[in-house]
Amino acid sequence: MCGTCGCNIPQTIADGHESVEVLIGLLDANDHQAAHNREHFNEHGVLAINLMSSPGAGKTALLEATIEAFDGKVRIAVIEGDLETENDAERIRAKGVPAIQISTGSACHLDAHMVHGALHDLDLQGIDILFIENVGNLVCPASFDLGQHFNVALLSTPEGHDKPAKYPVMFRAADLVLVTKSDLLAVLDDFDPTEALRCLRQLASSAPMLDLSAKTGDGMRGWVDWVEEAIA
Amino acid sequence: MCGTCGCNIPQTIADGHESVEVLIGLLDANDHQAAHNREHFNEHGVLAINLMSSPGAGKTALLEATIEAFDGKVRIAVIEGDLETENDAERIRAKGVPAIQISTGSACHLDAHMVHGALHDLDLQGIDILFIENVGNLVCPASFDLGQHFNVALLSTPEGHDKPAKYPVMFRAADLVLVTKSDLLAVLDDFDPTEALRCLRQLASSAPMLDLSAKTGDGMRGWVDWVEEAIA
Repeated sequence: MCGTCGCNIPQTIADGHESVEVLIGLLDANDHQAAHNREHFNEHGVLAINLMSSPGAGKTALLEATIEAFDGKVRIAVIEGDLETENDAERIRAKGVPAIQISTGSACHLDAHMVHGALHDLDLQGIDILFIENVGNLVCPASFDLGQHFNVALLSTPEGHDKPAKYPVMFRAADLVLVTKSDLLAVLDDFDPTEALRCLRQLASSAPMLDLSAKTGDGMRGWVDWVEEAIA
Repeated sequence: MCGTCGCNIPQTIADGHESVEVLIGLLDANDHQAAHNREHFNEHGVLAINLMSSPGAGKTALLEATIEAFDGKVRIAVIEGDLETENDAERIRAKGVPAIQISTGSACHLDAHMVHGALHDLDLQGIDILFIENVGNLVCPASFDLGQHFNVALLSTPEGHDKPAKYPVMFRAADLVLVTKSDLLAVLDDFDPTEALRCLRQLASSAPMLDLSAKTGDGMRGWVDWVEEAIA
């Protein structure tokens, strides 16, 4: 683990005792805040799900399709994390769901303090599920507890089936892996769902892996069932 | 800028004077090492190109196609950065080109010290171009000078054309942007090359943007011409 980001301190620098102390202080502070966030969620009966993936793997498209699938039967809210732009929050609001945008500037992940700040702008009493769409990054977000109940990692088919082997920290942290953009499988030659599952199992992860396409709706039922079971 | 990673220190923590001092020390140390690496490259007449992108945007496939396109006419070597696995280095070696794998563990980017360590395993005297394939991450690698002469950012079409707007730090740092997987354009509805270019220009970047497909070979000529001009 490195500095404030959750990645390794370069070996040549990590030897400094002071750096390590700062690191531990930062992660302790994050964990403390995350526990506090989780208490908030539990008090109000809110299920919090942290969505993580590479940039452009389809987190926002998944949320749009999820909101449509639930069709108002559960009360959804979204926290959007991006370096810049309010684009994603606007897409969610266009579906009639409250969305708070966190602009992280140059920060590569959300942390528990940022999420806590956003909670002040949400009426938790009126929410059943809070989706937290993390910054698009397959490394750093995995190391920061936000207070969520579940981590869901998206792996889009164009990225290739080897990603669980190459980004083990993220996929080990996942309670569920969604293989997104399954509609592209027919035109891709480097994504075999069986191989993706094998890579995941080699991390000693027993997380379920579901294929879906937010575009065509294929496989959305399995995801919605998972969410409903998580609420119950 | 945060900790050792180049991302922002969470605002609630950044106030600590000690954290900021550690950060400055880390980046100073990296810049110093990067300058030293660059001296090595210049002494031996090596052109160093840092390739950065999201996971699965096609950096390794681009390198394979580039090696084939040059067909031994320039002497290429590759440094591969990944959290885990030797897969990418093996793909490069299969093309008859020397490749050094850096396994970063949980670190989200290469730094100048890691690259310097890898240089000890390369015969710089026998190399014209060194490609450094960074860790797949559209945020953190942009903040770490490795001693390269040029930064090339890949944006794969399935990620969507809005990525320069959403990841401005990366695309501002790019001397060249390659739109990869152009063969998928026909089946995607969220990638318009004109929009991608508009997003890039809104960052006040004048970097050229070239479309290509390493799979079909379309557009490879423009990239190879750019590299040849960079060597000259």
